[in-house]
Amino acid sequence: MNRNQIVELAEQLKDGRLNVNQFVQRCAQSVTADMGDVHLDLDRARRCGYPEVVYAEGKTIDTVKQITARLRDNDQRVLVTRLSEAQAHELMLEFPAGHHNAIARTFRMDSSRSYPTERVGRVAIVTAGTSDQPVAEEARETLEWMDVEVCLIQDVGVAGPHRLPAHLGQFDDVDAIVVVAGMEGALPSVVGGYVSCPVIGVPTSVGYGAGFGGIAALLGMLNSCAANVTVVNIDAGFKAGYVAGLIAGRSG
Amino acid sequence: MNRNQIVELAEQLKDGRLNVNQFVQRCAQSVTADMGDVHLDLDRARRCGYPEVVYAEGKTIDTVKQITARLRDNDQRVLVTRLSEAQAHELMLEFPAGHHNAIARTFRMDSSRSYPTERVGRVAIVTAGTSDQPVAEEARETLEWMDVEVCLIQDVGVAGPHRLPAHLGQFDDVDAIVVVAGMEGALPSVVGGYVSCPVIGVPTSVGYGAGFGGIAALLGMLNSCAANVTVVNIDAGFKAGYVAGLIAGRSG
Amino acid sequence: MNRNQIVELAEQLKDGRLNVNQFVQRCAQSVTADMGDVHLDLDRARRCGYPEVVYAEGKTIDTVKQITARLRDNDQRVLVTRLSEAQAHELMLEFPAGHHNAIARTFRMDSSRSYPTERVGRVAIVTAGTSDQPVAEEARETLEWMDVEVCLIQDVGVAGPHRLPAHLGQFDDVDAIVVVAGMEGALPSVVGGYVSCPVIGVPTSVGYGAGFGGIAALLGMLNSCAANVTVVNIDAGFKAGYVAGLIAGRSG
Amino acid sequence: MNRNQIVELAEQLKDGRLNVNQFVQRCAQSVTADMGDVHLDLDRARRCGYPEVVYAEGKTIDTVKQITARLRDNDQRVLVTRLSEAQAHELMLEFPAGHHNAIARTFRMDSSRSYPTERVGRVAIVTAGTSDQPVAEEARETLEWMDVEVCLIQDVGVAGPHRLPAHLGQFDDVDAIVVVAGMEGALPSVVGGYVSCPVIGVPTSVGYGAGFGGIAALLGMLNSCAANVTVVNIDAGFKAGYVAGLIAGRSG
Amino acid sequence: MNRNQIVELAEQLKDGRLNVNQFVQRCAQSVTADMGDVHLDLDRARRCGYPEVVYAEGKTIDTVKQITARLRDNDQRVLVTRLSEAQAHELMLEFPAGHHNAIARTFRMDSSRSYPTERVGRVAIVTAGTSDQPVAEEARETLEWMDVEVCLIQDVGVAGPHRLPAHLGQFDDVDAIVVVAGMEGALPSVVGGYVSCPVIGVPTSVGYGAGFGGIAALLGMLNSCAANVTVVNIDAGFKAGYVAGLIAGRSG
Amino acid sequence: MNRNQIVELAEQLKDGRLNVNQFVQRCAQSVTADMGDVHLDLDRARRCGYPEVVYAEGKTIDTVKQITARLRDNDQRVLVTRLSEAQAHELMLEFPAGHHNAIARTFRMDSSRSYPTERVGRVAIVTAGTSDQPVAEEARETLEWMDVEVCLIQDVGVAGPHRLPAHLGQFDDVDAIVVVAGMEGALPSVVGGYVSCPVIGVPTSVGYGAGFGGIAALLGMLNSCAANVTVVNIDAGFKAGYVAGLIAGRSG
Amino acid sequence: MNRNQIVELAEQLKDGRLNVNQFVQRCAQSVTADMGDVHLDLDRARRCGYPEVVYAEGKTIDTVKQITARLRDNDQRVLVTRLSEAQAHELMLEFPAGHHNAIARTFRMDSSRSYPTERVGRVAIVTAGTSDQPVAEEARETLEWMDVEVCLIQDVGVAGPHRLPAHLGQFDDVDAIVVVAGMEGALPSVVGGYVSCPVIGVPTSVGYGAGFGGIAALLGMLNSCAANVTVVNIDAGFKAGYVAGLIAGRSG
Amino acid sequence: MNRNQIVELAEQLKDGRLNVNQFVQRCAQSVTADMGDVHLDLDRARRCGYPEVVYAEGKTIDTVKQITARLRDNDQRVLVTRLSEAQAHELMLEFPAGHHNAIARTFRMDSSRSYPTERVGRVAIVTAGTSDQPVAEEARETLEWMDVEVCLIQDVGVAGPHRLPAHLGQFDDVDAIVVVAGMEGALPSVVGGYVSCPVIGVPTSVGYGAGFGGIAALLGMLNSCAANVTVVNIDAGFKAGYVAGLIAGRSG
Repeated sequence: MNRNQIVELAEQLKDGRLNVNQFVQRCAQSVTADMGDVHLDLDRARRCGYPEVVYAEGKTIDTVKQITARLRDNDQRVLVTRLSEAQAHELMLEFPAGHHNAIARTFRMDSSRSYPTERVGRVAIVTAGTSDQPVAEEARETLEWMDVEVCLIQDVGVAGPHRLPAHLGQFDDVDAIVVVAGMEGALPSVVGGYVSCPVIGVPTSVGYGAGFGGIAALLGMLNSCAANVTVVNIDAGFKAGYVAGLIAGRSG
Repeated sequence: MNRNQIVELAEQLKDGRLNVNQFVQRCAQSVTADMGDVHLDLDRARRCGYPEVVYAEGKTIDTVKQITARLRDNDQRVLVTRLSEAQAHELMLEFPAGHHNAIARTFRMDSSRSYPTERVGRVAIVTAGTSDQPVAEEARETLEWMDVEVCLIQDVGVAGPHRLPAHLGQFDDVDAIVVVAGMEGALPSVVGGYVSCPVIGVPTSVGYGAGFGGIAALLGMLNSCAANVTVVNIDAGFKAGYVAGLIAGRSG
Repeated sequence: MNRNQIVELAEQLKDGRLNVNQFVQRCAQSVTADMGDVHLDLDRARRCGYPEVVYAEGKTIDTVKQITARLRDNDQRVLVTRLSEAQAHELMLEFPAGHHNAIARTFRMDSSRSYPTERVGRVAIVTAGTSDQPVAEEARETLEWMDVEVCLIQDVGVAGPHRLPAHLGQFDDVDAIVVVAGMEGALPSVVGGYVSCPVIGVPTSVGYGAGFGGIAALLGMLNSCAANVTVVNIDAGFKAGYVAGLIAGRSG
Repeated sequence: MNRNQIVELAEQLKDGRLNVNQFVQRCAQSVTADMGDVHLDLDRARRCGYPEVVYAEGKTIDTVKQITARLRDNDQRVLVTRLSEAQAHELMLEFPAGHHNAIARTFRMDSSRSYPTERVGRVAIVTAGTSDQPVAEEARETLEWMDVEVCLIQDVGVAGPHRLPAHLGQFDDVDAIVVVAGMEGALPSVVGGYVSCPVIGVPTSVGYGAGFGGIAALLGMLNSCAANVTVVNIDAGFKAGYVAGLIAGRSG
Repeated sequence: MNRNQIVELAEQLKDGRLNVNQFVQRCAQSVTADMGDVHLDLDRARRCGYPEVVYAEGKTIDTVKQITARLRDNDQRVLVTRLSEAQAHELMLEFPAGHHNAIARTFRMDSSRSYPTERVGRVAIVTAGTSDQPVAEEARETLEWMDVEVCLIQDVGVAGPHRLPAHLGQFDDVDAIVVVAGMEGALPSVVGGYVSCPVIGVPTSVGYGAGFGGIAALLGMLNSCAANVTVVNIDAGFKAGYVAGLIAGRSG
Repeated sequence: MNRNQIVELAEQLKDGRLNVNQFVQRCAQSVTADMGDVHLDLDRARRCGYPEVVYAEGKTIDTVKQITARLRDNDQRVLVTRLSEAQAHELMLEFPAGHHNAIARTFRMDSSRSYPTERVGRVAIVTAGTSDQPVAEEARETLEWMDVEVCLIQDVGVAGPHRLPAHLGQFDDVDAIVVVAGMEGALPSVVGGYVSCPVIGVPTSVGYGAGFGGIAALLGMLNSCAANVTVVNIDAGFKAGYVAGLIAGRSG
Repeated sequence: MNRNQIVELAEQLKDGRLNVNQFVQRCAQSVTADMGDVHLDLDRARRCGYPEVVYAEGKTIDTVKQITARLRDNDQRVLVTRLSEAQAHELMLEFPAGHHNAIARTFRMDSSRSYPTERVGRVAIVTAGTSDQPVAEEARETLEWMDVEVCLIQDVGVAGPHRLPAHLGQFDDVDAIVVVAGMEGALPSVVGGYVSCPVIGVPTSVGYGAGFGGIAALLGMLNSCAANVTVVNIDAGFKAGYVAGLIAGRSG
Repeated sequence: MNRNQIVELAEQLKDGRLNVNQFVQRCAQSVTADMGDVHLDLDRARRCGYPEVVYAEGKTIDTVKQITARLRDNDQRVLVTRLSEAQAHELMLEFPAGHHNAIARTFRMDSSRSYPTERVGRVAIVTAGTSDQPVAEEARETLEWMDVEVCLIQDVGVAGPHRLPAHLGQFDDVDAIVVVAGMEGALPSVVGGYVSCPVIGVPTSVGYGAGFGGIAALLGMLNSCAANVTVVNIDAGFKAGYVAGLIAGRSG
């Protein structure tokens, strides 16, 4: 609840439009849909720029459906991530207007009234290898949901050193680059050395042995000698896409 | 070396302004100052937007001085980080026009001809406690060096829950927020829930015991439930400031 | 065996009610039901306030049934945790008077004669997200079994910062608060800053990547900057509920 | 800011005692002493039961002195922890009425007007070995500062199994027990098996090799098979004492 | 090949019973049954006191059968550990004279001619809880195979502090004690404090969360404050039994 | 793209055989087969000595088939590693001329025209136990594919100390030795002490408990006191074989 | 307190030699010298075979002196470990009859009346390198204090594979072998393969980099493929010597 | 002792040149200089190609001097690594003919009679940054001692992507490349993608925070996607140089 909102409520109280009881309830109350076990944050789009995103893992299909319906009913754009196959199947049956990306494990649904459709900004997504594709797709779906233009460049890891430079031209007008890599996670450092925009490294759990499910890649990116590289959690395609989208959204 | 540069060199070759030998040397040659042990990247400002920054740890004072002089002679703005007291003392003797921040352990020096002085964009730096100050100062110095406006809010960690909200108004017009926190590193998540711009979390080594020199804070930030939080290395004030500055620089 | 018991046995020995052999056997003997592989501690309710609780994981269904029957036959209240579905099914067939909570994976059964039924004290259980529910339910069942009043507040994690304050009023008269959170585990710190009672943090294995199955949340809570936060093992809903119940039980 | 405070402010606004500007400032304003780099939380005693405690590590002596003076001027009881020898020396020169415990590395000072002096509740502190003494002393000083009665039992680790039982009688009337142990950290489990009150385990960095500076003891306590054991950070004597004091304070 | 064997071969060479070629082959040759992928060490019983033990995990059933047959044909006592159910089934079909312990996952078979049957020495095996039984059984089977007398005491973990002392009498005449415990692994320290013989701690993977599959118990035992405790690998019942048997075998 | 290639292209540009546009495209273009998601490096055999090897894990069977076909069509020798059973089955149906090793989980196929068939150099592969065989077989297949002669010595781990020396004669003429071992990973150190060629240690995930899936063996090999030991990733049979093959290939 | 002691006290109670109060005190009382902060266990020699050993690290010199004097006054043999140079100096001034080993950092002093002087059993101590000497010396001093014969073999690590076999003859009549090694910690496995007695591995912190202060050696020894190897803490020379001495003491 | 040596000794025995006693002594005896605490391996040059190298850390200066003298007296080339400044000073005083490299912390001394002086093979050493120089120098000194030609290329880390390609021509005729890098350790992967010879990665402890003293770089190199990269311990310049030298030595 920001200063402006307090001012408005105080004016209403002073004018008698609210009595003290009503005023206090408004102040203490959050703009939250209380759905039993779930507190859905309906105020987020206003506060943070985009609606709450649904993380499906560990939620029942009923919970996911209810949240989806509630967001739609509030004219909010829907994005669901980390869907199981079963969850996705049920969700598409209930909301056939939605879009399911099986590789990304995402579902999204736009309510046409609430968002402008012109694209804002442009983000490149780069992967080191084809096994990194699911994480890249999650980032891509997130950016589509944010109405940001995406350019996807795959399989240009550092061991084939001539592959990346062939694509440098595509970086000229991007606002941010999401770099997705497993194993040693070196690609963000190399990309970072070529460009002047922020690079968001996403370590993936691709690899084996001393890759430790993404830890090697994560540490590699955290210790990147390139100054423009920040990092998100292992396999966190959504978060990388989201932050890249925020940066792109500011560039206009 | 980008496409345009190759085109230009090719034109010169075709026109006879370059012979094949000269052409090849230009192609293969990097825009690097070979200073014996050091290869100084003089092309970085053009390629990445800002000149190479000098990480002083593990370098002799002579090396640091030579790089500083070389950058100055190339009309490049200088930023040196992680200075020891002794290194800083020597550097100020040699370059009295520079600015030394003892808490941040930085040195910077602007060559007036090369950069415009109007500020671009605005970044907030927030700390959880007073012990996080050195890292915050390193971020602040970096942003000053990038000509970005900075707003510093200190000692508003989550255990005193009314301290942060009192400052929310200061976040209204920032392009990015750098949040510096040790111990459990929870502050970026809380800040992230209030704002619509990217948040860059900097875990610090402040704390003891199971804080493990910043690992607890690092993991906390990587696992932040706030979608707009990315992370840099432990105590990496420079990198956080740099990326925040890049974002701010695009906002104009 | 406490001082009083030794005194009593000594008196009996002196009075001739016990001979030396009998006396020694009594002293050395524990108040333990020797059930072959299991040594059931029947003295625990007197010594520690509550009977032994049965951890079902890794026990055969026959063992679980035997212990349950033995506790009932000794007028002790039964609590079984970490039941598999199969174990729970068998247990309910054998003891239909019991109560099975499938989300909590618990079974409890009260023998009406042995315990007073008035509630003692009050504990709040707070979760960061809906995926933390099974752990919260295990804590709730434990508190019910201890006859402590419970208030459950779900899905108020730190990324939606207005959700928790709306519930602060519910904390006014509680004796302890159990806070259940995965990912970065920041919620106990924030709750701790608002209240004057002990807060028991339960890290959960909810999350992915660098959450490392609850390690990030565990470290976050151990390093909490709030002075009133203690921590239990990852996913240890029972233990958190138990300690909260002990605190509540003392408040009367 | 709790509901009652909002009500009161709203009444004043309605009555005209506050204008809207004043009202908003009061709402948004925290009860915080803005001391430059430090935001001192002067509202904590009312909100959390006890004033803010000063963690001296990483603070300049001037900062520590200023906070101490400010708390005293607000009639708040002072506790400073993790003092260096130099800090302690300076602090005692400035505030000779204070009490410095060199082993505990603490300083405390009571302002006679603000607190009742009768003791509330009773806590036992138990150590495994003599090397655990500094942590135990920090807990003891904290409890003294909270006006809780303390009973200290030292050097009763599990390798000498007859030492602990000789002291069991001292546990009969305590409200909580703080158990301080390094190496394998087994003592809380053993104490926990004898008593009906909460046990707060404090792992210490005492030990060598695979003790890993307290990690072995920390993991031991987190995995304690005794149901009444919770854990705080390695060497966190203050936090253990504080929580034990909160429990004791509720027992009256 | 020890000195005596070299002497003997040298005498034979000198006497002409061996020619140089034969001599060299004997020297270089190991007393090993070359079975294709497997080099079975048939000399171990003479060198180390007991035959080679077969670790079944990762071996085909055919390999296990061949080794078993070869050992039997060489009059060596057979012990196979870590058998899968399928492996055990096949092995019992082929060698019905053998003994299969399903809980221990072992198979053993004695060839009557080669070993004396009188028992040598006596070892106690102690477990903290019933879930530790499989590891204890593996140790027991190993000791049976070594003809050592075993005494098994189960479910006497530290949280029920009166359970262990009731069994202390059974330790009076043992040569070594194997203590099997998961969770915090505190039991070896407590047992160690009561006895004068070596204690071999076996951490088990019993537990959850921060038990990390036995790491907490392992660290606990390595840091035991009892001087007579040594440690083996997590779940290594065989190795603990084997070393205890070696100690017992020397006591005669 | 090396200097010679740039020279050649520049000559063509100067001669008019290429116009500027064509020249630039050639310079920027990599010798890569763009296959949608995959960028196949067809230039690697020239640059690095051997063609790109296909890591099948996480690739669809269609992708694996397409790459295989493309390599064959370019007269490149094919090696596919980490095949699932299903992938291998499909691949053999499509390319019956190939060779599938089920234990090694590899597929290879030689196109007769492109490679000489005389063997170059000789490598020994040594395993500590039979469970290390799959990793050793992957190394062996790699070396066969490189036309290097291989000598495989199995099950000669350090616990049977006479087994290795019996095979020392086989090391006399090898160019490199690949040593495959799990558990404590001590074998490379022992082999290293006997020979004058490089030893490449491959830690395997064989073992249990504190073996941590190969970490113990990995650390053992990294800390080897033998000066001629280098290490590759856990279970990285391919990489060990490949580097050994490179060394052998230089020896001629 | 064992059964016999209870019987004796019970007889005295029955005979009237003790009244109930006296009896209870005796039962509850431990045979402990209460020295303020220290509870010295004077009963340990009877219970565990040897007196309490003093771990000097973290104790004041006064405490160490007092314990030493108290043990001497009770006719107990003294062993102090982990002495600093300063502590050792003071101790030798006070007890010139003692023996200080500067490399081992130990002090020991025998009170002639209380122990027989004939040697019992024989133990070999083996080191991998000369840097392991301090740990080996601590083990040796411990064994001397226990009146066990010691044979010390140094610098026979696995990288020089012919060094160990030259000493195998010295192992023929030992009761146990203490093997001290840093780096990869492979030596216990190799020694274990040659002998029939228990081997106690002591990992040392010798090494660098991925040795992690002894962790690599510790893991190596825990995962030893030799069945007769148990392990103690990193650098725990005392404990290894102690357990070896216990084994040797039983061999007579 | 290899087959040939056994054959020779056997012939001597048969001929009567040796009696059985002498023969056995020769067989059992190692070619080792017994220097008290040190067993110097004088046979290593014959067995492994190069003499034993002296690791000075943890050795007294006297020990280092004695070994140096002994090696010289046996006409063996001397290399001492990890010298402290004090050790180096003393060593140069005693052996002024030696060569001390202060950055590398090495000492070497050649005895002119024993080694040919023509160079064999060529190795490149590449560093990511100037802070990696000490490790690179240790590798260089090792290669000089082995009479291998060295080419040193410094400060070409991945963040300045045009720096490495400018040096690719220098790799055309090398037999192996040692790549030294801290932070994320990405350089070996990039180098590996350009060349056809083995690459030996040396992670360094250069960096801070989540670099964890070289662990990030170590994991990065172990997980390198380049097939020709093997790895040595953190900061192990000697070992990397040694193995590179072995490879170079075979190339002739």
